[in-house]
Amino acid sequence: MTVKAQRLLEEADVVLHDKLPGPEILGQIPEEKREDVGKRAGGEWTPQEYTNKRLVELAREGKTVVRLKGGDPFVFGRGGEEAEHLASEGIPFEVVPGITSAIGGPAVAGIPVTHRDHASSVSFVTGHEDPTKEESAVNWEALAATGGTIVVLMGVGKLPDYTKALRSAGMNPETPVALVERATWPNMRVATGNLEDIVDVRDEYDIEPPAITVIGEVAGTRERVLEFLRNESESETEPESQTGTER
Amino acid sequence: MTVKAQRLLEEADVVLHDKLPGPEILGQIPEEKREDVGKRAGGEWTPQEYTNKRLVELAREGKTVVRLKGGDPFVFGRGGEEAEHLASEGIPFEVVPGITSAIGGPAVAGIPVTHRDHASSVSFVTGHEDPTKEESAVNWEALAATGGTIVVLMGVGKLPDYTKALRSAGMNPETPVALVERATWPNMRVATGNLEDIVDVRDEYDIEPPAITVIGEVAGTRERVLEFLRNESESETEPESQTGTER
Repeated sequence: MTVKAQRLLEEADVVLHDKLPGPEILGQIPEEKREDVGKRAGGEWTPQEYTNKRLVELAREGKTVVRLKGGDPFVFGRGGEEAEHLASEGIPFEVVPGITSAIGGPAVAGIPVTHRDHASSVSFVTGHEDPTKEESAVNWEALAATGGTIVVLMGVGKLPDYTKALRSAGMNPETPVALVERATWPNMRVATGNLEDIVDVRDEYDIEPPAITVIGEVAGTRERVLEFLRNESESETEPESQTGTER
Repeated sequence: MTVKAQRLLEEADVVLHDKLPGPEILGQIPEEKREDVGKRAGGEWTPQEYTNKRLVELAREGKTVVRLKGGDPFVFGRGGEEAEHLASEGIPFEVVPGITSAIGGPAVAGIPVTHRDHASSVSFVTGHEDPTKEESAVNWEALAATGGTIVVLMGVGKLPDYTKALRSAGMNPETPVALVERATWPNMRVATGNLEDIVDVRDEYDIEPPAITVIGEVAGTRERVLEFLRNESESETEPESQTGTER
């Protein structure tokens, strides 16, 4: 979390949040200030329309409101839609960037998403698309042709589909791939393979959402730095947690 | 800056930095702890080899060293190279992600790099490539074909080249484009246009490095939210600074 986000949370009258920021951050916010707009009892999600309406309602009551999201609000976070809604209702707002898991997740696993020798570009896509769209809006063939790193958020379930699409598009089956499960959490796990065998690796180690997929030569960096890579948040009593699924 | 980065800066014995973090952050670090490995007197840059060597040297002296970079160390930041060097020399290290200007820059200008309605992917490239490479390693045709947002870092100088390449690749000349100069700084400026006229806009408003180029439908979001978009860091006495070059 940024210093600025922390200060704004302290100053806020109300914090609208979902579960993604994690218990460590949510625990710092007094319970009477919190409103959960994530998963509700019964497994249903709060509709986006409700969140939009609630933001406006609270602002009109004169409250200072923080809409807290995990990661960055403008990277697959629907922050853009919320900003447009606030503007259309005449509510002033500020955007405070955060660390997207698309960059921070690979980083704590020892993987730079760009590298002067391997990747001149990096593309972020989501594996979990708007279910109302009939076909995949992601052009995997074009992504393969960029020659850069590809990072897929929420990409565990559709891993077989898009790794196949990338191979069909001519990407080398030996391209390194890393799966980073629960990135930055103390129980983070990382599994590595290549574009050909990563589905088997996923199944063997039972990698589950939330996880990030990194596809590209940069994924091979982890192997070269792992021995000296430290993560402060790792549990002292389980030193192997970080490398539990390393091959 | 993140809470974690701030704490590590306080704990560090030595901070190796360049100028990118900005005076506000550098000013917080006691001068006797700082070592500048950015631009040197005479306009020359410190060679990467020197920085690599110095990191190892200080660590072997038993010092706790922070290598401070502006933005995120693993997004066009050469952090990957430094990590590999440390690992090859047997020095333990940790990677602390930061906010890349590729996301934070557009965000403070009111531009979400992804949007459920407009962009299923976002690609980051650098306009300032390794000068030892003979031809552009960036496949602009493939980037155009992704259909997603394209963010170019350090892309002021080569703007004519790549906007032309993207148009030749079939991208709509009316695609919105935004230039964000000195993103997140109090004297930030934003200029907007489209893939056809943005070079003229750049010249008219004399947009200079450092600046970020955002290409895609999302760049049009700024116009819809601008009236209600606030930035805390804006100067109170110059309320027009944010919109000075807005068309």
